[in-house]
Amino acid sequence: MEDLFAEPMKGVPRSFIREILKASLDPEMISFAGGLPNPAFFPAKEIEQAGRQVFEKLGADVLQYSNSEGDPQLREYISNRYKSHHGLSISPENIIITNGAQQGIDLIGKTFLNSGDEVLIEKPGYLGAIQALSLYNITFIPVPVDEGGMDVAALEQASAGRHAKLLHLVPTFQNPSGVTYPDENRQQVAAVAEKNRFIVIEDDPYSELRFSGRAATSFGQFLPEQTVLLGSFSKVVAPGLRLGWIAAPGWVHEKLIVAKQAADLHTCGLTQKLVGEFLLEHDLDQRIALITKAYGEQCRAMLDALKRYVPEYISFTEPEGGMFIWGRLPESMKSLDLFQEAVKEKVVFVPGEPFYTGDAATSTFRLNFTCADPVTIEAGVRRLAKAVSRFVKS
Amino acid sequence: MEDLFAEPMKGVPRSFIREILKASLDPEMISFAGGLPNPAFFPAKEIEQAGRQVFEKLGADVLQYSNSEGDPQLREYISNRYKSHHGLSISPENIIITNGAQQGIDLIGKTFLNSGDEVLIEKPGYLGAIQALSLYNITFIPVPVDEGGMDVAALEQASAGRHAKLLHLVPTFQNPSGVTYPDENRQQVAAVAEKNRFIVIEDDPYSELRFSGRAATSFGQFLPEQTVLLGSFSKVVAPGLRLGWIAAPGWVHEKLIVAKQAADLHTCGLTQKLVGEFLLEHDLDQRIALITKAYGEQCRAMLDALKRYVPEYISFTEPEGGMFIWGRLPESMKSLDLFQEAVKEKVVFVPGEPFYTGDAATSTFRLNFTCADPVTIEAGVRRLAKAVSRFVKS
Repeated sequence: MEDLFAEPMKGVPRSFIREILKASLDPEMISFAGGLPNPAFFPAKEIEQAGRQVFEKLGADVLQYSNSEGDPQLREYISNRYKSHHGLSISPENIIITNGAQQGIDLIGKTFLNSGDEVLIEKPGYLGAIQALSLYNITFIPVPVDEGGMDVAALEQASAGRHAKLLHLVPTFQNPSGVTYPDENRQQVAAVAEKNRFIVIEDDPYSELRFSGRAATSFGQFLPEQTVLLGSFSKVVAPGLRLGWIAAPGWVHEKLIVAKQAADLHTCGLTQKLVGEFLLEHDLDQRIALITKAYGEQCRAMLDALKRYVPEYISFTEPEGGMFIWGRLPESMKSLDLFQEAVKEKVVFVPGEPFYTGDAATSTFRLNFTCADPVTIEAGVRRLAKAVSRFVKS
Repeated sequence: MEDLFAEPMKGVPRSFIREILKASLDPEMISFAGGLPNPAFFPAKEIEQAGRQVFEKLGADVLQYSNSEGDPQLREYISNRYKSHHGLSISPENIIITNGAQQGIDLIGKTFLNSGDEVLIEKPGYLGAIQALSLYNITFIPVPVDEGGMDVAALEQASAGRHAKLLHLVPTFQNPSGVTYPDENRQQVAAVAEKNRFIVIEDDPYSELRFSGRAATSFGQFLPEQTVLLGSFSKVVAPGLRLGWIAAPGWVHEKLIVAKQAADLHTCGLTQKLVGEFLLEHDLDQRIALITKAYGEQCRAMLDALKRYVPEYISFTEPEGGMFIWGRLPESMKSLDLFQEAVKEKVVFVPGEPFYTGDAATSTFRLNFTCADPVTIEAGVRRLAKAVSRFVKS
């Protein structure tokens, strides 16, 4: 009865990422493949403590159904933080608490997408967005991204006179490439969006994980009535709690609420209160400073080792924050083939292919540096270098 | 820029239910309008205690990303309970933990529905299913339901030679009507589904809340390869935790996982562990016995008061469990008009209209009995009776 499936479900390939995660289970494997925050910084004790306080204050009420928008106190915290850390005026009334930023992407799909619509997406782009939006039976129009940000001429060409409704971006410490759009580039992208009437989705789970350079300006500054912001506690508190948010102008927000209610009524009330209580009692900035210090050192260690051990014809991005470095082999070399050699050397990464919606740059790959200490990172890069030299010989 | 919205979003009316909930905020109001479980039975202390144990056992690991299927221990508990309480063989591998059963409905939409598809739904039907599935831009085909179960001739007519993919049912203590399909009727419905090749969604949040009569047989017995089961901890543990599940045959399950991953990666790992730990330490059946004893008394009190105070020309269903009683006025009387009078008497209920996808039976209404004690229930029914007599005079 497979004919009953929705169209986009018929073409879903087996996830390569899952295969990689399986390889990562080998205890001798050094994995640069994951996308996990470092659990050493998860506030387990503090969340447990928050649990006691929440139950003392609220009792059984915290376990009842609550509203689709999410906890008012938590939304106010997020609103205040937009003001103090990003210079953005976002009312708590424009925020919905979601099950991670991933759900925000899905709610945007519900709100905007008809079968056959066009969606602009980064090339390479965020895998979770590709997965979520592709289930709306849409056509992706990939727009190239590199150290200079988005290719504005390509964006103009991809959207002028066409009907793309959305542009999905991770403009700060992008997943997978680690690049950050310069402010000037953001302004140009916003101008194209305004002119060609599409919504900019600024998917931003990483911007607070900055370990060098200066903060970039949110699209919410350049284009407030056409920007939908996605945020997350996954990388600064803990991901398993599944707490993110979506902030949108009023005309979009009122539809997003309908989508959220249809999707699952509301986000878990207890975890919202746990994180709210945690944020009340602890300084998030202090915690973030610890995380970025470690990630910065780990990123430095990886870049240094890559320079030292890996041949110069393989290039790497140099991120100022976030969780990923992007590698580029000469075009004649496929990262999937390198991956096979790397597994033999007990090191894994993610070949670039899943991050592309159209023609894939098969010579690219993603390295993650958040979950290994500098010594392990150096060892892993040496294994990678061995895999490269074996690969070149073969 | 409203032209950018997806088609189903353009027609979304302001929710009447929200208006009712607003009226319910008046502290003098007696509300039979809600659909909330009674918080007196939420295991707040036990969940808090479970939190300590979970953090002691697992530490920060419980806050890391986890798999899309959900916690293996919790899925095994559900599998065992299907066996012991429903006589069903459902492997843990066929279960996905969702954000309440509501998310299960949405994942089914993602898995099966293309724009323009047909979906069979009860008349009256569950509002949450109507909301979730209508966002897939589909056509509902309502099939009448009453004390005898589903109208099988109407189901046959609605599905023969057509292309309906899904039938959504709440066959036990239905929301809104409180009716339970007899086993013979279930068998007939299953036969039509088999013949006309559509999926039966057995949405079952209530069956364990039985206070009289004998357990009914799950569609999973009659039609295992075409039945998708939705279950929930909302009514037997607590709803605010947003924990439900979807159990499906293998050929459907593998697509549902793709949908779940796209929707929000996974359900909150901490709440899954909290409830898992709670179920390990406490006997759920004992707890359910307390809940059903109270709900049974409250339902009895409401039915008795309705018989005593409300004129005979208004009829009511007599549920054997669950949370709702369904009222039917003479056809010439509109329950929305009665609602206006009832608000003046400080009692509210839900007029039937939102539960219909096609022509609405405007003379019906839903009463909830779970959140008021018998004395309050009697007082509320007396107010309702006053509203009726004023309404009849006007």
